Amino acid sequence: MRMLIAYLRAKPLTLLVLALPLAVLAEISHWGEVWVFALSALAVVPLASYIGEGTEALAAHTNPRIGGLLNATLGNAAELIITIFAIREGLLELVKASITGSILGNVLLVLGASMVVGGVRHGVQTFDRRNASRNAILLVLAVLALLIPSILNHFTDAPEDIRVESLSLGVAAVMILLYVLALVYSFKAEGTPLAHSQAEQPVHVHAWGVRKALIVLALATGGVVIASELLVGAVEPVVEGLGVSEFFLGIILIPLIGNVAEHLVAVTAAARNHMELSVEIAIASSLQIALFVAPVLVFISLLFGNPLQLIFNQVEVLALAAGVLITALVSEDGESNWLEGAELLAIYVMLALAFFLLPV
Amino acid sequence: MRMLIAYLRAKPLTLLVLALPLAVLAEISHWGEVWVFALSALAVVPLASYIGEGTEALAAHTNPRIGGLLNATLGNAAELIITIFAIREGLLELVKASITGSILGNVLLVLGASMVVGGVRHGVQTFDRRNASRNAILLVLAVLALLIPSILNHFTDAPEDIRVESLSLGVAAVMILLYVLALVYSFKAEGTPLAHSQAEQPVHVHAWGVRKALIVLALATGGVVIASELLVGAVEPVVEGLGVSEFFLGIILIPLIGNVAEHLVAVTAAARNHMELSVEIAIASSLQIALFVAPVLVFISLLFGNPLQLIFNQVEVLALAAGVLITALVSEDGESNWLEGAELLAIYVMLALAFFLLPV
Amino acid sequence: MRMLIAYLRAKPLTLLVLALPLAVLAEISHWGEVWVFALSALAVVPLASYIGEGTEALAAHTNPRIGGLLNATLGNAAELIITIFAIREGLLELVKASITGSILGNVLLVLGASMVVGGVRHGVQTFDRRNASRNAILLVLAVLALLIPSILNHFTDAPEDIRVESLSLGVAAVMILLYVLALVYSFKAEGTPLAHSQAEQPVHVHAWGVRKALIVLALATGGVVIASELLVGAVEPVVEGLGVSEFFLGIILIPLIGNVAEHLVAVTAAARNHMELSVEIAIASSLQIALFVAPVLVFISLLFGNPLQLIFNQVEVLALAAGVLITALVSEDGESNWLEGAELLAIYVMLALAFFLLPV
Repeated sequence: MRMLIAYLRAKPLTLLVLALPLAVLAEISHWGEVWVFALSALAVVPLASYIGEGTEALAAHTNPRIGGLLNATLGNAAELIITIFAIREGLLELVKASITGSILGNVLLVLGASMVVGGVRHGVQTFDRRNASRNAILLVLAVLALLIPSILNHFTDAPEDIRVESLSLGVAAVMILLYVLALVYSFKAEGTPLAHSQAEQPVHVHAWGVRKALIVLALATGGVVIASELLVGAVEPVVEGLGVSEFFLGIILIPLIGNVAEHLVAVTAAARNHMELSVEIAIASSLQIALFVAPVLVFISLLFGNPLQLIFNQVEVLALAAGVLITALVSEDGESNWLEGAELLAIYVMLALAFFLLPV
Repeated sequence: MRMLIAYLRAKPLTLLVLALPLAVLAEISHWGEVWVFALSALAVVPLASYIGEGTEALAAHTNPRIGGLLNATLGNAAELIITIFAIREGLLELVKASITGSILGNVLLVLGASMVVGGVRHGVQTFDRRNASRNAILLVLAVLALLIPSILNHFTDAPEDIRVESLSLGVAAVMILLYVLALVYSFKAEGTPLAHSQAEQPVHVHAWGVRKALIVLALATGGVVIASELLVGAVEPVVEGLGVSEFFLGIILIPLIGNVAEHLVAVTAAARNHMELSVEIAIASSLQIALFVAPVLVFISLLFGNPLQLIFNQVEVLALAAGVLITALVSEDGESNWLEGAELLAIYVMLALAFFLLPV
Repeated sequence: MRMLIAYLRAKPLTLLVLALPLAVLAEISHWGEVWVFALSALAVVPLASYIGEGTEALAAHTNPRIGGLLNATLGNAAELIITIFAIREGLLELVKASITGSILGNVLLVLGASMVVGGVRHGVQTFDRRNASRNAILLVLAVLALLIPSILNHFTDAPEDIRVESLSLGVAAVMILLYVLALVYSFKAEGTPLAHSQAEQPVHVHAWGVRKALIVLALATGGVVIASELLVGAVEPVVEGLGVSEFFLGIILIPLIGNVAEHLVAVTAAARNHMELSVEIAIASSLQIALFVAPVLVFISLLFGNPLQLIFNQVEVLALAAGVLITALVSEDGESNWLEGAELLAIYVMLALAFFLLPV
């Protein structure tokens, strides 16, 4: 009992696991869809964190290459599961908004909060320009590639649907090829762009064995599957009941609950003056979404007969383009301070306000 | 008399103060609105310069923090006064155009002219990369924040007016919060982003006492108030009579007359091989407009019952975004030459030509 | 005979010269327009290369300034000739697309291929940040200037045609002035932005005398004139027959055939670890197109009574803006690797796919 309390003190988020049975109860006992939505959303937070820890523990028992591969593919597992359920339900706008929101959250919210916390404690923080800017360049190129079908689609006359679908599949195929190339590059070079090296993480020391890691992974994944099913099922009633748009849920809420744990790691790193790690987490996570999650969803969507096309709306295009350009600008500079962080957070808050107020 | 001539030789612009009584005369004697407009515009040039000198003299007698605050808030006083009168008259397009034009003038005209003059005299000029790029990043973030309501407004379905107004006020409130944070940052850190340090200015050595400074400030401000009243009152007849658009007056003419004096300081600094100071003046002045003048006008406009919304038109959005990205690019590099300056000037000239020729 | 075989082994592209008589034969014997198009396109490849070599040989016999001027003006001679014929035929969309495609080809295809080939062989390649970023800044400014009429035209109410034409001519005049200034700058400063220095080129050692150089130049230019006439005459039937758009021909095919030889030089330089030269070729060639070829075509078009306006369509504007910003980002960094190159190539492939699939 005392150990449990000590554990909960060290990791208070764990308590939120209790939200999962409550969410199931809410669904069965018809408490109302808002309760189902809120409880299953809360439940995702610690479960996503357990998937992350399980992956890292498992990675620590393999060789670094397989470990890097595990981190790079399972890093956004919770979000991948939620979006797959959303595709099954035909909530394609929600899916595209959550891809956008994940990248924006990483480059504005995580970087911003890290810079504020780190800057207040340590003044101007510096980090290796070369690594950071190399990864930022990859991110800019990856996101621009992701946006090509959208841009061309918005500014040409209405094309036939079959052509848009071909373009979307072609682009997705090239993205996955790029992802494989980026993995190959990561295995060979230092300053890996896709998987931040475990050695640099001073936070987690895992005593977990392979068996425990696998069990945790399986349980957490199962929990996320249940929570996602409940969450996605409640989206439409919540949109109608509360008056928030599907777009707002997708671009702000879904990315937040899937990444809270990872965000905390980045901010903690900045507080310990490891700003380099914070920048790396934000950029690596965004790269995974752009190069892996988004194109994989395009192909998975074909299985469900709800083809997801990589056509983001103009607000998403502009927000993404601005977001990655800012990241590149901030990283090429090789240093950060709390005012820069406050401006990034201010932009995130203003965007959230606008997404909340305006119809998209 | 000889002293007066010597003084006028050193500061030939001072002669333009005579334009103020002539403008009043033109208004009373009905010489025609074009005369009123031209004379009151000319009168603003030296008066704005006197406000600047008075502020600096006053700042020199206080401690550096209060001095920095004075410089940061009164730096664009002339422009603030003109735009307040324009809001009272309901000339909201003129106001937004002059906010845009002030930033463009600083990042294209002032930087361009400084680089040409400095580059011709001294070849490739270098300046501290870190300071310059830190401030440029703040500027990019500030201007992007300023543009968020416009971008989202243009690319969404026509939203209800009340929502746009809420968004505009929310964004303005966040901007002012950022401005306060930037001031706090300036007081604590070196390489202040908002107020260029007086110590670096080799040009002005003020023997003015506090009393003289206050009298000059009061007289010059009073003069600007009179000139602004005349100027703004003549805008509509001039637009109809001369066939130039309100947009052109706002984006090219108003910013020019309000900033000529400051522009001259920047170019003179470049000619003396203090390129760093020129870059700092251009960026600091733009930052003040984006973070302080624009949001303050939003709130002031409520008092006059002519609510100013931060919805810039698409030309303004694109010009601003391009302008600050260019500044960031030029600053991150840490050096300048006359060809770079000539290209900046060329872009300004082309923009002016386009604003003159095309209806907006 | 043995010498001929040895020569062809060293320069296999030379064989393609045979395509010229075949193209003439195809035209006379009515083999069909697709044959005429394909053969004359192939013939341009070695002829453009001969113009390049002739120019360099001639330049080697003059003083460096005249040599630089020759390289800067004749560097894109083949493309200039093709586009002049296209203007005569009224194929203005083809001309604007080929200006866009030339710049995109240089900044995406050439840089991308050079980085992949160089990176695979030599790992991370570094190059002088200052030179590269200075030239990249000039390129960004030049392309932005080129885009000003388009941007303002798309986002304003339909203006009168006479005003658009005036703006186009005014901008073209300023561009040519900038080109002359850039030439003057090149003559005086090191790290010339317009003509990459011959001394750095380890590839070509010319034993050609002035006479031989002039004869080669004359013959090759004559050949390009014939090939261009045939090529341009076949564009419309090919567009109708094959179902590819005039836009696709202009943006992908025409720039490729006019620049293959130059592209090979850049990639070869990267393979020999002269990444700096590759970057310089890509940027210098893009600068020539933006500052010299495009505005000269505006004035030449007046002679043919088919006025070319510098109004690019929105896809061209976005592709150009994104392309030069990427180049700036990649150059400011001062280093490259094969993954960066692969991403640039991926963007080029995706754009080509989109241009092929979507109507513009």
